[in-house]
Amino acid sequence: MTRIILASKSASRRALLDGAGVPFEAVGSGVDEDIIKGQEKAKGASPAAIALALARAKALAVQADAEDLVIGGDQVLDFKNTLYDKPKSMGEAAERLTAMAGQTHYLRGALCLAQGGDVIWSHEETSALTMRAASREEVEAYLNSVGDRVLRTVGAYELEGPGVRLFEKIEGDYFSILGLPLLPLLDALRTRGVLLW
Amino acid sequence: MTRIILASKSASRRALLDGAGVPFEAVGSGVDEDIIKGQEKAKGASPAAIALALARAKALAVQADAEDLVIGGDQVLDFKNTLYDKPKSMGEAAERLTAMAGQTHYLRGALCLAQGGDVIWSHEETSALTMRAASREEVEAYLNSVGDRVLRTVGAYELEGPGVRLFEKIEGDYFSILGLPLLPLLDALRTRGVLLW
Repeated sequence: MTRIILASKSASRRALLDGAGVPFEAVGSGVDEDIIKGQEKAKGASPAAIALALARAKALAVQADAEDLVIGGDQVLDFKNTLYDKPKSMGEAAERLTAMAGQTHYLRGALCLAQGGDVIWSHEETSALTMRAASREEVEAYLNSVGDRVLRTVGAYELEGPGVRLFEKIEGDYFSILGLPLLPLLDALRTRGVLLW
Repeated sequence: MTRIILASKSASRRALLDGAGVPFEAVGSGVDEDIIKGQEKAKGASPAAIALALARAKALAVQADAEDLVIGGDQVLDFKNTLYDKPKSMGEAAERLTAMAGQTHYLRGALCLAQGGDVIWSHEETSALTMRAASREEVEAYLNSVGDRVLRTVGAYELEGPGVRLFEKIEGDYFSILGLPLLPLLDALRTRGVLLW
Protein backbone atom coordinates (compact mmCIF):
# COMPACT_ATOMS: atom_id res chain seq x y z
CA MET A 1 0.00 0.00 0.00
CA THR A 2 1.26 3.45 -0.93
CA ARG A 3 1.95 5.53 2.16
CA ILE A 4 2.08 9.33 2.21
CA ILE A 5 5.07 10.56 4.22
CA LEU A 6 5.63 14.18 5.20
CA ALA A 7 9.38 14.86 5.47
CA SER A 8 8.85 17.44 8.20
CA LYS A 9 7.90 17.66 11.85
CA SER A 10 6.50 21.19 11.38
CA ALA A 11 3.33 21.54 13.46
CA SER A 12 1.64 23.89 10.99
CA ARG A 13 2.26 21.62 7.97
CA ARG A 14 1.00 18.60 9.90
CA ALA A 15 -2.09 20.49 11.02
CA LEU A 16 -2.96 21.43 7.44
CA LEU A 17 -2.72 17.82 6.21
CA ASP A 18 -4.55 16.52 9.28
CA GLY A 19 -7.34 19.03 8.77
CA ALA A 20 -7.76 17.96 5.15
CA GLY A 21 -8.18 14.35 6.29
CA VAL A 22 -5.08 13.14 4.42
CA PRO A 23 -3.64 9.96 5.98
CA PHE A 24 0.10 10.47 6.42
CA GLU A 25 3.13 9.88 8.61
CA ALA A 26 5.47 12.70 9.58
CA VAL A 27 9.20 12.06 9.89
CA GLY A 28 12.09 14.50 10.25
CA SER A 29 14.28 14.53 7.14
CA GLY A 30 17.55 14.96 9.05
CA VAL A 31 18.77 17.24 6.27
CA ASP A 32 21.34 19.89 7.29
CA GLU A 33 19.75 22.96 5.75
CA ASP A 34 22.77 25.19 6.31
CA ILE A 35 24.99 22.95 4.18
CA ILE A 36 22.50 22.95 1.30
CA LYS A 37 21.96 26.70 1.52
CA GLY A 38 25.73 27.24 1.50
CA GLN A 39 26.19 25.02 -1.56
CA GLU A 40 23.35 26.72 -3.44
CA LYS A 41 24.50 30.23 -2.54
CA ALA A 42 28.01 29.33 -3.74
CA LYS A 43 26.43 28.39 -7.09
CA GLY A 44 24.68 31.76 -7.22
CA ALA A 45 21.22 30.18 -6.89
CA SER A 46 18.22 32.49 -6.41
CA PRO A 47 16.20 32.33 -3.16
CA ALA A 48 13.42 30.45 -5.07
CA ALA A 49 15.94 27.90 -6.38
CA ILE A 50 17.33 27.43 -2.87
CA ALA A 51 13.83 26.76 -1.49
CA LEU A 52 13.32 24.13 -4.19
CA ALA A 53 16.72 22.52 -3.51
CA LEU A 54 15.81 22.30 0.20
CA ALA A 55 12.39 20.78 -0.55
CA ARG A 56 13.94 18.21 -2.91
CA ALA A 57 16.69 17.31 -0.45
CA LYS A 58 14.16 16.73 2.34
CA ALA A 59 11.89 14.56 0.18
CA LEU A 60 14.82 12.46 -1.06
CA ALA A 61 16.44 12.06 2.37
CA VAL A 62 13.59 10.10 3.92
CA GLN A 63 13.78 6.29 3.92
CA ALA A 64 10.65 4.96 2.22
CA ASP A 65 9.37 1.98 0.27
CA ALA A 66 9.54 2.23 -3.53
CA GLU A 67 5.85 3.07 -3.94
CA ASP A 68 5.60 5.56 -1.05
CA LEU A 69 5.04 9.24 -1.79
CA VAL A 70 7.28 11.56 0.23
CA ILE A 71 6.35 15.24 0.59
CA GLY A 72 9.20 17.73 1.02
CA GLY A 73 8.62 21.45 1.51
CA ASP A 74 10.49 24.60 2.39
CA GLN A 75 9.97 28.35 2.49
CA VAL A 76 12.61 31.09 2.49
CA LEU A 77 12.53 34.85 2.89
CA ASP A 78 13.67 36.81 -0.15
CA PHE A 79 14.35 40.52 0.33
CA LYS A 80 15.93 42.30 -2.63
CA ASN A 81 16.84 38.95 -4.19
CA THR A 82 18.82 37.85 -1.12
CA LEU A 83 17.89 34.94 1.12
CA TYR A 84 17.79 35.88 4.81
CA ASP A 85 18.37 33.45 7.66
CA LYS A 86 17.02 33.86 11.19
CA PRO A 87 18.49 36.94 12.90
CA LYS A 88 21.13 36.07 15.51
CA SER A 89 20.47 38.95 17.89
CA MET A 90 17.80 41.52 18.74
CA GLY A 91 20.07 44.18 17.23
CA GLU A 92 20.16 42.26 13.93
CA ALA A 93 16.36 41.83 14.11
CA ALA A 94 15.92 45.60 14.56
CA GLU A 95 18.22 46.30 11.61
CA ARG A 96 16.39 43.83 9.40
CA LEU A 97 12.92 45.12 10.23
CA THR A 98 14.00 48.74 9.79
CA ALA A 99 15.46 47.84 6.37
CA MET A 100 12.28 45.98 5.32
CA ALA A 101 9.89 48.72 6.55
CA GLY A 102 8.06 50.42 3.71
CA GLN A 103 9.22 47.71 1.29
CA THR A 104 8.01 44.43 -0.16
CA HIS A 105 9.66 41.11 0.59
CA TYR A 106 8.75 37.66 -0.69
CA LEU A 107 8.21 34.28 0.86
CA ARG A 108 9.37 31.73 -1.71
CA GLY A 109 7.89 28.33 -1.06
CA ALA A 110 8.62 25.02 -2.75
CA LEU A 111 6.93 21.68 -2.40
CA CYS A 112 7.73 18.36 -4.05
CA LEU A 113 6.78 14.72 -4.12
CA ALA A 114 9.43 12.02 -4.32
CA GLN A 115 8.82 8.37 -5.15
CA GLY A 116 11.36 5.57 -5.60
CA GLY A 117 14.28 7.95 -5.20
CA ASP A 118 13.11 10.49 -7.81
CA VAL A 119 11.29 13.79 -7.52
CA ILE A 120 8.12 13.20 -9.57
CA TRP A 121 6.29 16.49 -8.96
CA SER A 122 7.13 19.95 -7.70
CA HIS A 123 5.37 23.24 -7.13
CA GLU A 124 6.65 26.74 -6.40
CA GLU A 125 4.66 29.52 -4.83
CA THR A 126 5.46 33.12 -3.96
CA SER A 127 3.73 35.40 -1.47
CA ALA A 128 4.44 39.15 -1.47
CA LEU A 129 4.41 40.94 1.89
CA THR A 130 4.61 44.71 2.13
CA MET A 131 5.56 46.25 5.44
CA ARG A 132 4.36 49.73 6.26
CA ALA A 133 6.79 52.57 6.82
CA ALA A 134 8.06 52.43 10.40
CA SER A 135 10.78 54.25 12.29
CA ARG A 136 13.56 52.50 14.18
CA GLU A 137 11.70 53.55 17.38
CA GLU A 138 8.49 51.82 16.25
CA VAL A 139 10.44 48.72 15.32
CA GLU A 140 12.09 48.70 18.75
CA ALA A 141 8.73 49.20 20.49
CA TYR A 142 7.54 46.09 18.63
CA LEU A 143 10.65 44.05 19.47
CA ASN A 144 10.48 45.04 23.14
CA SER A 145 6.84 43.95 23.27
CA VAL A 146 7.50 40.46 21.87
CA GLY A 147 11.01 39.66 23.12
CA ASP A 148 13.54 37.27 21.67
CA ARG A 149 11.02 34.72 20.40
CA VAL A 150 11.27 36.62 17.08
CA LEU A 151 14.78 35.18 16.71
CA ARG A 152 13.10 31.85 15.87
CA THR A 153 11.62 33.34 12.66
CA VAL A 154 13.41 34.38 9.48
CA GLY A 155 11.53 37.66 9.19
CA ALA A 156 11.74 38.63 12.87
CA TYR A 157 7.94 38.77 12.89
CA GLU A 158 5.07 36.36 13.27
CA LEU A 159 1.92 37.10 11.29
CA GLU A 160 -0.16 35.37 13.94
CA GLY A 161 1.27 37.70 16.60
CA PRO A 162 1.66 41.48 17.03
CA GLY A 163 4.10 41.41 14.10
CA VAL A 164 1.07 41.71 11.82
CA ARG A 165 0.82 45.34 12.93
CA LEU A 166 3.99 46.07 10.94
CA PHE A 167 2.27 45.14 7.66
CA GLU A 168 0.44 47.09 5.01
CA LYS A 169 -0.42 44.40 2.48
CA ILE A 170 -0.15 40.62 2.23
CA GLU A 171 -0.67 38.98 -1.15
CA GLY A 172 -0.48 35.25 -1.59
CA ASP A 173 -2.18 31.94 -1.35
CA TYR A 174 -3.96 31.43 1.95
CA PHE A 175 -2.60 27.91 2.54
CA SER A 176 0.92 28.75 1.39
CA ILE A 177 1.11 31.53 3.98
CA LEU A 178 0.02 28.96 6.57
CA GLY A 179 2.95 26.80 5.44
CA LEU A 180 1.86 24.45 2.65
CA PRO A 181 0.22 25.08 -0.78
CA LEU A 182 -2.49 22.59 0.05
CA LEU A 183 -4.65 22.73 -3.10
CA PRO A 184 -1.90 21.84 -5.64
CA LEU A 185 -0.67 19.11 -3.29
CA LEU A 186 -4.14 17.57 -2.91
CA ASP A 187 -4.50 17.61 -6.69
CA ALA A 188 -1.13 15.86 -7.12
CA LEU A 189 -2.12 13.20 -4.57
CA ARG A 190 -5.53 12.67 -6.20
CA THR A 191 -3.94 12.36 -9.63
CA ARG A 192 -1.70 9.58 -8.26
CA GLY A 193 -4.70 7.68 -6.89
CA VAL A 194 -3.86 7.96 -3.18
CA LEU A 195 -6.90 10.11 -2.36
CA LEU A 196 -10.30 8.85 -3.46
CA TRP A 197 -11.90 12.30 -3.71
CA MET B 1 -10.36 56.30 27.73
CA THR B 2 -11.43 55.01 24.34
CA ARG B 3 -12.25 51.33 24.48
CA ILE B 4 -12.26 49.00 21.48
CA ILE B 5 -15.32 46.75 21.51
CA LEU B 6 -15.84 43.80 19.15
CA ALA B 7 -19.57 43.29 18.55
CA SER B 8 -19.13 39.54 18.15
CA LYS B 9 -18.41 36.47 20.23
CA SER B 10 -16.86 34.68 17.22
CA ALA B 11 -13.82 32.70 18.38
CA SER B 12 -11.90 33.22 15.14
CA ARG B 13 -12.41 37.01 15.10
CA ARG B 14 -11.37 37.26 18.74
CA ALA B 15 -8.29 35.11 18.10
CA LEU B 16 -7.16 37.39 15.26
CA LEU B 17 -7.44 40.55 17.38
CA ASP B 18 -5.85 38.83 20.39
CA GLY B 19 -2.95 37.63 18.24
CA ALA B 20 -2.36 41.15 16.95
CA GLY B 21 -2.12 42.39 20.54
CA VAL B 22 -5.12 44.72 20.20
CA PRO B 23 -6.74 45.43 23.59
CA PHE B 24 -10.50 44.89 23.21
CA GLU B 25 -13.68 43.59 24.81
CA ALA B 26 -15.99 41.19 22.98
CA VAL B 27 -19.75 41.45 23.45
CA GLY B 28 -22.55 39.78 21.54
CA SER B 29 -24.56 42.29 19.50
CA GLY B 30 -27.92 40.61 20.12
CA VAL B 31 -28.92 41.50 16.54
CA ASP B 32 -31.47 39.18 14.88
CA GLU B 33 -29.67 38.52 11.61
CA ASP B 34 -32.64 36.82 9.97
CA ILE B 35 -34.81 39.93 10.36
CA ILE B 36 -32.14 42.16 8.79
CA LYS B 37 -31.50 39.71 5.96
CA GLY B 38 -35.25 39.52 5.29
CA GLN B 39 -35.58 43.32 5.19
CA GLU B 40 -32.58 43.70 2.90
CA LYS B 41 -33.68 40.92 0.55
CA ALA B 42 -37.13 42.53 0.34
CA LYS B 43 -35.39 45.74 -0.82
CA GLY B 44 -33.52 43.74 -3.48
CA ALA B 45 -30.14 44.31 -1.81
CA SER B 46 -27.09 42.46 -3.18
CA PRO B 47 -25.27 39.91 -0.97
CA ALA B 48 -22.45 42.46 -0.46
CA ALA B 49 -24.95 45.11 0.64
CA ILE B 50 -26.58 42.66 3.03
CA ALA B 51 -23.20 41.84 4.61
CA LEU B 52 -22.61 45.57 5.13
CA ALA B 53 -26.09 46.08 6.60
CA LEU B 54 -25.42 43.23 9.06
CA ALA B 55 -22.01 44.63 10.05
CA ARG B 56 -23.50 48.11 10.58
CA ALA B 57 -26.42 46.78 12.60
CA LYS B 58 -24.08 44.82 14.89
CA ALA B 59 -21.74 47.77 15.47
CA LEU B 60 -24.66 50.11 16.23
CA ALA B 61 -26.51 47.65 18.50
CA VAL B 62 -23.83 47.53 21.19
CA GLN B 63 -24.13 49.82 24.21
CA ALA B 64 -20.95 51.88 24.44
CA ASP B 65 -19.65 55.19 25.73
CA ALA B 66 -19.56 58.08 23.26
CA GLU B 67 -15.83 57.78 22.57
CA ASP B 68 -15.69 53.97 22.32
CA LEU B 69 -14.97 52.33 18.96
CA VAL B 70 -17.25 49.40 18.17
CA ILE B 71 -16.23 46.87 15.50
CA GLY B 72 -19.03 45.12 13.60
CA GLY B 73 -18.36 42.47 10.98
CA ASP B 74 -20.18 39.94 8.87
CA GLN B 75 -19.55 37.58 5.97
CA VAL B 76 -22.09 36.03 3.60
CA LEU B 77 -21.92 33.44 0.85
CA ASP B 78 -22.82 34.73 -2.61
CA PHE B 79 -23.44 32.14 -5.31
CA LYS B 80 -24.75 33.49 -8.61
CA ASN B 81 -25.67 36.78 -6.91
CA THR B 82 -27.87 35.04 -4.34
CA LEU B 83 -27.16 34.96 -0.60
CA TYR B 84 -27.24 31.46 0.84
CA ASP B 85 -28.08 30.66 4.46
CA LYS B 86 -26.94 27.57 6.33
CA PRO B 87 -28.42 24.40 4.81
CA LYS B 88 -31.25 22.93 6.89
CA SER B 89 -30.65 19.26 6.07
CA MET B 90 -27.98 16.95 4.70
CA GLY B 91 -30.06 16.65 1.52
CA GLU B 92 -30.00 20.42 1.08
CA ALA B 93 -26.23 20.42 1.77
CA ALA B 94 -25.72 17.77 -0.96
CA GLU B 95 -27.79 19.79 -3.42
CA ARG B 96 -25.92 22.99 -2.67
CA LEU B 97 -22.46 21.42 -2.98
CA THR B 98 -23.42 19.64 -6.19
CA ALA B 99 -24.67 22.95 -7.62
CA MET B 100 -21.50 24.81 -6.57
CA ALA B 101 -19.11 22.09 -7.87
CA GLY B 102 -17.06 23.29 -10.83
CA GLN B 103 -18.14 26.89 -10.18
CA THR B 104 -16.94 29.99 -8.34
CA HIS B 105 -18.74 31.44 -5.35
CA TYR B 106 -17.86 34.49 -3.30
CA LEU B 107 -17.51 35.27 0.36
CA ARG B 108 -18.60 38.90 0.78
CA GLY B 109 -17.25 40.38 3.98
CA ALA B 110 -17.99 43.73 5.56
CA LEU B 111 -16.43 45.40 8.56
CA CYS B 112 -17.22 48.73 10.16
CA LEU B 113 -16.39 50.95 13.09
CA ALA B 114 -19.10 52.82 14.97
CA GLN B 115 -18.56 55.65 17.42
CA GLY B 116 -21.13 57.76 19.23
CA GLY B 117 -24.02 56.13 17.38
CA ASP B 118 -22.61 56.63 13.88
CA VAL B 119 -20.70 54.36 11.53
CA ILE B 120 -17.44 56.26 10.97
CA TRP B 121 -15.54 53.74 8.81
CA SER B 122 -16.35 50.67 6.76
CA HIS B 123 -14.53 48.21 4.57
CA GLU B 124 -15.75 45.56 2.13
CA GLU B 125 -13.76 42.56 0.98
CA THR B 126 -14.50 39.72 -1.44
CA SER B 127 -12.86 36.31 -1.65
CA ALA B 128 -13.45 34.09 -4.69
CA LEU B 129 -13.59 30.33 -4.12
CA THR B 130 -13.68 27.88 -7.00
CA MET B 131 -14.80 24.33 -6.30
CA ARG B 132 -13.55 21.55 -8.49
CA ALA B 133 -15.90 19.47 -10.59
CA ALA B 134 -17.40 16.74 -8.41
CA SER B 135 -20.18 14.23 -8.90
CA ARG B 136 -23.13 13.85 -6.54
CA GLU B 137 -21.42 10.61 -5.36
CA GLU B 138 -18.20 12.44 -4.45
CA VAL B 139 -20.20 15.12 -2.65
CA GLU B 140 -22.04 12.44 -0.69
CA ALA B 141 -18.80 10.66 0.18
CA TYR B 142 -17.58 13.95 1.61
CA LEU B 143 -20.80 14.62 3.53
CA ASN B 144 -20.83 11.09 4.98
CA SER B 145 -17.25 11.54 6.16
CA VAL B 146 -17.91 14.77 8.05
CA GLY B 147 -21.50 14.36 9.22
CA ASP B 148 -24.04 17.03 10.11
CA ARG B 149 -21.52 19.50 11.52
CA VAL B 150 -21.50 21.01 8.02
CA LEU B 151 -25.02 22.29 8.72
CA ARG B 152 -23.40 24.91 10.98
CA THR B 153 -21.67 26.53 7.97
CA VAL B 154 -23.22 28.49 5.11
CA GLY B 155 -21.23 26.69 2.44
CA ALA B 156 -21.65 23.17 3.86
CA TYR B 157 -17.86 22.95 3.98
CA GLU B 158 -15.08 24.02 6.31
CA LEU B 159 -11.79 25.06 4.72
CA GLU B 160 -9.93 23.91 7.83
CA GLY B 161 -11.45 20.44 7.47
CA PRO B 162 -11.75 17.82 4.69
CA GLY B 163 -14.01 20.29 2.84
CA VAL B 164 -10.84 21.84 1.41
CA ARG B 165 -10.56 18.76 -0.80
CA LEU B 166 -13.56 20.02 -2.77
CA PHE B 167 -11.67 23.14 -3.88
CA GLU B 168 -9.63 24.02 -6.91
CA LYS B 169 -8.69 27.65 -6.22
CA ILE B 170 -9.06 30.11 -3.38
CA GLU B 171 -8.38 33.77 -4.04
CA GLY B 172 -8.66 36.38 -1.36
CA ASP B 173 -7.08 38.13 1.55
CA TYR B 174 -5.55 35.74 4.05
CA PHE B 175 -7.02 37.42 7.12
CA SER B 176 -10.44 37.95 5.54
CA ILE B 177 -10.72 34.24 4.86
CA LEU B 178 -9.88 33.66 8.54
CA GLY B 179 -12.79 35.95 9.41
CA LEU B 180 -11.60 39.56 9.68
CA PRO B 181 -9.74 41.87 7.22
CA LEU B 182 -7.15 42.62 9.88
CA LEU B 183 -4.79 44.98 8.02
CA PRO B 184 -7.39 47.63 7.02
CA LEU B 185 -8.87 47.41 10.53
CA LEU B 186 -5.47 47.94 12.21
CA ASP B 187 -4.89 50.91 9.93
CA ALA B 188 -8.27 52.41 10.86
CA LEU B 189 -7.53 51.95 14.58
CA ARG B 190 -4.04 53.46 14.24
CA THR B 191 -5.43 56.44 12.33
CA ARG B 192 -7.82 57.09 15.24
CA GLY B 193 -4.99 57.03 17.77
CA VAL B 194 -6.04 53.93 19.71
CA LEU B 195 -3.00 51.88 18.67
CA LEU B 196 0.42 53.44 19.25
CA TRP B 197 2.15 51.50 16.45
